[in-house]
Amino acid sequence: MKPLIYEQPLNEKVRSYLRLEYLAQQLAQAIASDQQHNGFYPLFSLCEMTDRCDFRSEVLKDLDRQILVLNKWQDLPHADTQQINLLINRLNQAKGPLQQPERIGVALKQDKFISALRQKFSMLGACCNFDLPQLHCWLAKSWSDRQQDLTTWLTHYHPLLEPICLLLELSRSTAEFVPATAHAGFYQQDCTQVLSLVRVKLTADSECYPIISGHRNRFAIHFVDFQQQKHSDKSIQFFLATCSANH
Amino acid sequence: MKPLIYEQPLNEKVRSYLRLEYLAQQLAQAIASDQQHNGFYPLFSLCEMTDRCDFRSEVLKDLDRQILVLNKWQDLPHADTQQINLLINRLNQAKGPLQQPERIGVALKQDKFISALRQKFSMLGACCNFDLPQLHCWLAKSWSDRQQDLTTWLTHYHPLLEPICLLLELSRSTAEFVPATAHAGFYQQDCTQVLSLVRVKLTADSECYPIISGHRNRFAIHFVDFQQQKHSDKSIQFFLATCSANH
Repeated sequence: MKPLIYEQPLNEKVRSYLRLEYLAQQLAQAIASDQQHNGFYPLFSLCEMTDRCDFRSEVLKDLDRQILVLNKWQDLPHADTQQINLLINRLNQAKGPLQQPERIGVALKQDKFISALRQKFSMLGACCNFDLPQLHCWLAKSWSDRQQDLTTWLTHYHPLLEPICLLLELSRSTAEFVPATAHAGFYQQDCTQVLSLVRVKLTADSECYPIISGHRNRFAIHFVDFQQQKHSDKSIQFFLATCSANH
Repeated sequence: MKPLIYEQPLNEKVRSYLRLEYLAQQLAQAIASDQQHNGFYPLFSLCEMTDRCDFRSEVLKDLDRQILVLNKWQDLPHADTQQINLLINRLNQAKGPLQQPERIGVALKQDKFISALRQKFSMLGACCNFDLPQLHCWLAKSWSDRQQDLTTWLTHYHPLLEPICLLLELSRSTAEFVPATAHAGFYQQDCTQVLSLVRVKLTADSECYPIISGHRNRFAIHFVDFQQQKHSDKSIQFFLATCSANH
């Protein structure tokens, strides 16, 4: 069985990045196989998040910061310069689409079908065909047509989602999993450096899940027994990775 | 290609029934094939609807009314008495579970996993694993285990959903589709009897959808061109069925 990884962001920026990455994954799944109207849930969450906050300048700053870090790595002995150059190129390429004057997702908001759907979608059981006849008309299209539509809609968000996924990938790669034990279902740690992300890996049969809380350089993990839905008092073996904010 | 049927309720009760029937269908699909966390959307819509309104007495009244109607049918010449008796039995059997003292869905509300999930589920992109670690723990279960869970949760709503689906089925069976034409994309009709449901059948390749509005004994249908998302001025052939409220 595949191990399960739970992640906790330790600042607001990484929290948003993880949400956006998750929505990108959900949409990729909705494009990979027919999920009927369910693909609209992550799409509209994406619309909403990018409406509330324009992440572009934040992401651009992060890209520049990451390029600086990687440039320093180039000077280290035994550096894999080819690999590092590849990454620097990817980061540089991601900057262009973020520097367009138009805000991400604006074009999609002008789509009449999308905006009509979005208005009603959060209503209770609102996908009935009398609420949204246009949705049922769309669902009657062939899957390849709908797949094409979903791909086009997602494309609007690529300039934002691709660099965010890349930044998170780099962030995760800075910390390796090490074995740890939670005595009586509890674990806590103080770090000297500021952290961005705490990751807990469990085997899929462990029948408990972690609730992680924390801020900057300290965090605590409570393990909860799934069956009983309450704090586990067992000794729990897990793998822990703590990603630094300034890698 | 399968024809598409659009339905419009002409009163509040049928509107609720159609919503509940739709949610029942969505959940049945989520039990038939793995849709990851998407099965929770119709489940929580069901929780919410039955929280807001206790449909039991309304459904019981409808069951009794329907039994009366069917009993009258028995006396008609050429009545298929065997078929009618079968229906009367089904309607009678549906009454028992609705007469239990406990409100529908109350037991499910006491489930800690369900209530924790439900609280956060309507949040934006809130299925991230830091929002709902217990959801990710549940998703790691085998599909047969999750299928079993979903079936158990849906079972709480069977006493309500089964008679509603049966009542709607009977209501639909009272009216046959007849050909009709919407000139310049518009159609309207006044009826002598009070209607409960208007049904419009279109071929799947018609590239337009109906917006139906109406109340009691009159209704209007506007056809909208899907591509342009605006009123179609074409002559549109369709099939129409109008179901009486007092069948």
